[in-house]
Amino acid sequence: MLSPVKNLKIYELVMEQIKDIVKKGELKTGDKLPSERDLCERLEVSRSSVREALKALQMLGLIESKHGEGNFIKENFEDSLLEPLSIVFLLLGSKDEEVLELRRVIEPEIAALAAKNITGEQLIELKEIMNELNETIDAEISVSLDKKFHYKIAKASGNNLISTIMFSISSLIEKYIEKSKVHTLNKELVKTQHEEIWKALEAKDFEAAATAVRKHLELNTDL
Amino acid sequence: MLSPVKNLKIYELVMEQIKDIVKKGELKTGDKLPSERDLCERLEVSRSSVREALKALQMLGLIESKHGEGNFIKENFEDSLLEPLSIVFLLLGSKDEEVLELRRVIEPEIAALAAKNITGEQLIELKEIMNELNETIDAEISVSLDKKFHYKIAKASGNNLISTIMFSISSLIEKYIEKSKVHTLNKELVKTQHEEIWKALEAKDFEAAATAVRKHLELNTDL
Repeated sequence: MLSPVKNLKIYELVMEQIKDIVKKGELKTGDKLPSERDLCERLEVSRSSVREALKALQMLGLIESKHGEGNFIKENFEDSLLEPLSIVFLLLGSKDEEVLELRRVIEPEIAALAAKNITGEQLIELKEIMNELNETIDAEISVSLDKKFHYKIAKASGNNLISTIMFSISSLIEKYIEKSKVHTLNKELVKTQHEEIWKALEAKDFEAAATAVRKHLELNTDL
Repeated sequence: MLSPVKNLKIYELVMEQIKDIVKKGELKTGDKLPSERDLCERLEVSRSSVREALKALQMLGLIESKHGEGNFIKENFEDSLLEPLSIVFLLLGSKDEEVLELRRVIEPEIAALAAKNITGEQLIELKEIMNELNETIDAEISVSLDKKFHYKIAKASGNNLISTIMFSISSLIEKYIEKSKVHTLNKELVKTQHEEIWKALEAKDFEAAATAVRKHLELNTDL
């Protein structure tokens, strides 16, 4: 069942196989994994390799072990898995212009989706973030709130996949905002532009939302 | 130095701290990590917690251990790390419409970037993928080549961050293409549309490239 793959450790092969099971749709979030013994038989590997793979999946935050019940695929990955991922993006994305380019590729379109799908509650939450941002003079808090503002818009897109991707790069975005020093240099302009984005979202005007985000991301061209 | 965080295991806290070091720009790809002893002292945790964190980072494919030399941050993550990530996206992204929506958000803009930055060599490679795709009648191979075609375009964007994200969702895209049965139902149309995309890239016409990709992604609306 296992075909030889170069440079892969056994537990990585086991993870590959588990991935294939997921891909076939046999396993989804919340489901119980086959027992260690079943996995050994099905994947034709030793018990210790299966244990190592399960440990790796646990470390990745993909599965959780419930005492006496076995291993389950997590219902919610937000807390755990994407954090290590953000380390990768931090390592890879050291170039500021790449981060800005990525933001320009995805965020205007995400805002357009959000304009279609945002709920009243989400509009209020966004407004609260904006108010907090206006009230603080702390640079670090400002950066964190600004990141939160943009992530909230991704959540409001209603597309789980999109918000997961935005979540996984949010450390990068945070670092980018921090380096741009926009909250020290252009605090008033950020305020006006965030309001403009908010108004377009409230009006459910998807073109205006995309345009407002695009304009907002122009702010840092000279970084 | 460590502030208490709910529900986090010690090794996760250590990973958090290592992430902070990366965030501050003290560590980048290829760099050597501080020794286990240094990490213990700096992070004020036990040797075994540091070892567990390093093991987790190794499993994630973020670091590699060189015998007698210590631990290094990997130069290239493509082979290892993003594979487990694609499991998450497979699990999360079970909704076909979410995958299509994501593709519509990012791929036209990525193609526009690629039109600006694609090299002659990459154009030839893309052409080769198209030729292989035209020659095969195997459904599975077609799906894999189609995925490769779109990933190559992301690589040609010249933005490492963007191609990493595309790589991390490529299993999802593959599954999506497979389910759309587009290679069984519309093989000729796929061929024509891929050619259209290729011509726009060759002409370095970024608007035409985005439009061609947008049109291509309309193909599966009835999925």
